Amino acid sequence: MLTTQGADARRLDETDPLAAKRDLFSIPDGVLYLDGNSLGVLPAAVPAHVQTVVTQQWGTSLIRAWNDHDWIDLPQRVGDKIAPIVGAAPGTVTACDNTSVNVFKVLAAALALRPDRKVILSDNGNFPTDLYMAQGLRDLLGRGHELKIVDPEAVEAAIDDSVAVVMLTEVDYKTGRLHDMAALTKRAHDVGALTVWDLAHSAGALPVKLDAAGADFAVGCGYKYLNGGPGAPAFLYVAARLQDKVTPPLTGWMGHEAPFAFDLDFRADTGIGRMRVGTPPVISLSALDKALDAFADVDMEVLRAKSISLSELFRAEIERRCPELELASPRDPEARGSQVSFRFEHGYALMQALIARGVIGDFRAPDVVRFGFTPLYLSHADVLAACDILEDIVRTRGWDKPEFHKRAKVT
Amino acid sequence: MLTTQGADARRLDETDPLAAKRDLFSIPDGVLYLDGNSLGVLPAAVPAHVQTVVTQQWGTSLIRAWNDHDWIDLPQRVGDKIAPIVGAAPGTVTACDNTSVNVFKVLAAALALRPDRKVILSDNGNFPTDLYMAQGLRDLLGRGHELKIVDPEAVEAAIDDSVAVVMLTEVDYKTGRLHDMAALTKRAHDVGALTVWDLAHSAGALPVKLDAAGADFAVGCGYKYLNGGPGAPAFLYVAARLQDKVTPPLTGWMGHEAPFAFDLDFRADTGIGRMRVGTPPVISLSALDKALDAFADVDMEVLRAKSISLSELFRAEIERRCPELELASPRDPEARGSQVSFRFEHGYALMQALIARGVIGDFRAPDVVRFGFTPLYLSHADVLAACDILEDIVRTRGWDKPEFHKRAKVT
Repeated sequence: MLTTQGADARRLDETDPLAAKRDLFSIPDGVLYLDGNSLGVLPAAVPAHVQTVVTQQWGTSLIRAWNDHDWIDLPQRVGDKIAPIVGAAPGTVTACDNTSVNVFKVLAAALALRPDRKVILSDNGNFPTDLYMAQGLRDLLGRGHELKIVDPEAVEAAIDDSVAVVMLTEVDYKTGRLHDMAALTKRAHDVGALTVWDLAHSAGALPVKLDAAGADFAVGCGYKYLNGGPGAPAFLYVAARLQDKVTPPLTGWMGHEAPFAFDLDFRADTGIGRMRVGTPPVISLSALDKALDAFADVDMEVLRAKSISLSELFRAEIERRCPELELASPRDPEARGSQVSFRFEHGYALMQALIARGVIGDFRAPDVVRFGFTPLYLSHADVLAACDILEDIVRTRGWDKPEFHKRAKVT
Repeated sequence: MLTTQGADARRLDETDPLAAKRDLFSIPDGVLYLDGNSLGVLPAAVPAHVQTVVTQQWGTSLIRAWNDHDWIDLPQRVGDKIAPIVGAAPGTVTACDNTSVNVFKVLAAALALRPDRKVILSDNGNFPTDLYMAQGLRDLLGRGHELKIVDPEAVEAAIDDSVAVVMLTEVDYKTGRLHDMAALTKRAHDVGALTVWDLAHSAGALPVKLDAAGADFAVGCGYKYLNGGPGAPAFLYVAARLQDKVTPPLTGWMGHEAPFAFDLDFRADTGIGRMRVGTPPVISLSALDKALDAFADVDMEVLRAKSISLSELFRAEIERRCPELELASPRDPEARGSQVSFRFEHGYALMQALIARGVIGDFRAPDVVRFGFTPLYLSHADVLAACDILEDIVRTRGWDKPEFHKRAKVT
């Protein structure tokens, strides 16, 4: 007999408008995958497509494939598939390089548009590589830029007219806390600053509205909620109004107006193309290309509703069953992305035990266990099953007993 | 009955120590592929390996594959496979990003080691993207650096104590002209300059001796003679003696001493690792990884001998049969890489006709036809067959007749 929660979950799954999407993904038996925010699962159509690219396009067409299979426009085709997922017009997104390199490109381009200002404002919830790239750029430029890092809650107040660029990750990788892109972008523009948004934990997870928010620059990841495969090429966005004003700092031949003229001087391509650099990794990029087809007919508002339904079920059940775990994400689902994190002193051991039983999430030091909810391939039944296993581990290990807490040390 | 040339070619193929290597590659029927210097052919072992990476490693292990299949060390494993091919010690080469991005990284790092000098010396035989990246870096830094571009023959004389970095492509992409790496590096060091060598048309094509030449920095391409697939990740080299002095300009988490500590501050990894930036494209990198196995037991001097034997056969036959084509490569095979180029006023039409008949080479404007000779999968019989077709096209089109030349225009 189903529990009340089980009956509720079944009802929710039966009316899930995205339920059929699960068949588009190859999920290993026995795995409850709550880690699509680290590496999305394999879309079922990808292996055959990759094989075609390798054996037919590369193997048979060889160099002719650049034209015959239009590899040359692949970065833009992929960019134009990502664009609607992040609320961007065609021609404003391109797929290239990795997120870190793209952060460098858009941050340098943004700083060049605000030559009289020296502050790059970010927060300590930003993903570290974004901060690292900013540090490297600051040191490379040697022009006295300051990377100012504040608490996420303090960002808005810190945006003043000394700020050249506000550089933020929309969804905090650890806690899932969601920044208000529209409000912060408006605040930045009000004082003459530009914005760089990292969408690593947003793109494909919730509705992003780059154009509507008036965002200036953005980057994002191809291998998390977009399911493009390990190390899939990343993407970047430049608002249409800025594209022809932008000076790319990494001026490679793929960003040249005429790459195959082999001129000795760089001339920036028109539009977003100038932000590309070198030859794209066609096989990896083709995997991402095919993976994106899963989003072709997805209404991101519908996806968001399911995301919240899944993450709220998980949050509520875990808080009810395992009060030893302390919620590290915003309780308000509208204030977080598609993940729920908990602080727990035995977090490391808990995650190891979960993974051993097929519930795959992440541990982030010192004590955060993180669970991502990918609406395209997870069901409410999956979420409940994960809750059952988590609860069982906590009880079996005795972590629910006060005396155990006294004995134990954080791993 | 075989022609004299045919008999000679057969004899050379029968004693070819690399003849068995051809079976390691999937070459389409009817194709004589003289374009391995643009995109190497598909190694036969790659499709199954890529499929394993996609379906087993990604599909089944999911996020655990970073440890279980050691994706995290893949850039270094691949780098260590490339190292012996370019005469470099283990730990001095890593596979990452594309050639353009790597040029930026090593050039910026080199300039930082010579802060008082302002000249980047290169030549007009360098591949344009290298020059473009240098222009972008120069403009980004805004510190008065000069990119001085001279004729290839004038490089040596132009190396003086104003030069911070000599940045050259060892083998000219158009003509195949080979720079003397050891001599130019010594000359650079004699005046206190550093060197950046681009090995795009060298690595896998001839013996490169980075360590022995005392080279400082190098970059190279994974998808030409290394056969890593379209847009395969590139590589870079930093001499062991410089690694811990080098300031990376692109400071991403994969170059951090402890990427998974998620510190807010960048701390450069020890050794070559600090030159990595973001998450590598694992599928594309895995194709390169597997492709490199073809080099495992190859003596690069043996490979060079065959390369010269192939290219000399082609050069001599074409010069004898089609004097209308003017050799654009050095006649001395020791002074060129593994390619032969000709200038021909009907070059574009000739290459189109060749490709239509399965002889695949390249055309480079305004009038250069370029043929690459990959010793691992080409035979002397292939070369003669290509000569036969080329000669037949020239005669059939009447390009060997003086009156045709008067009428025709360069395309």
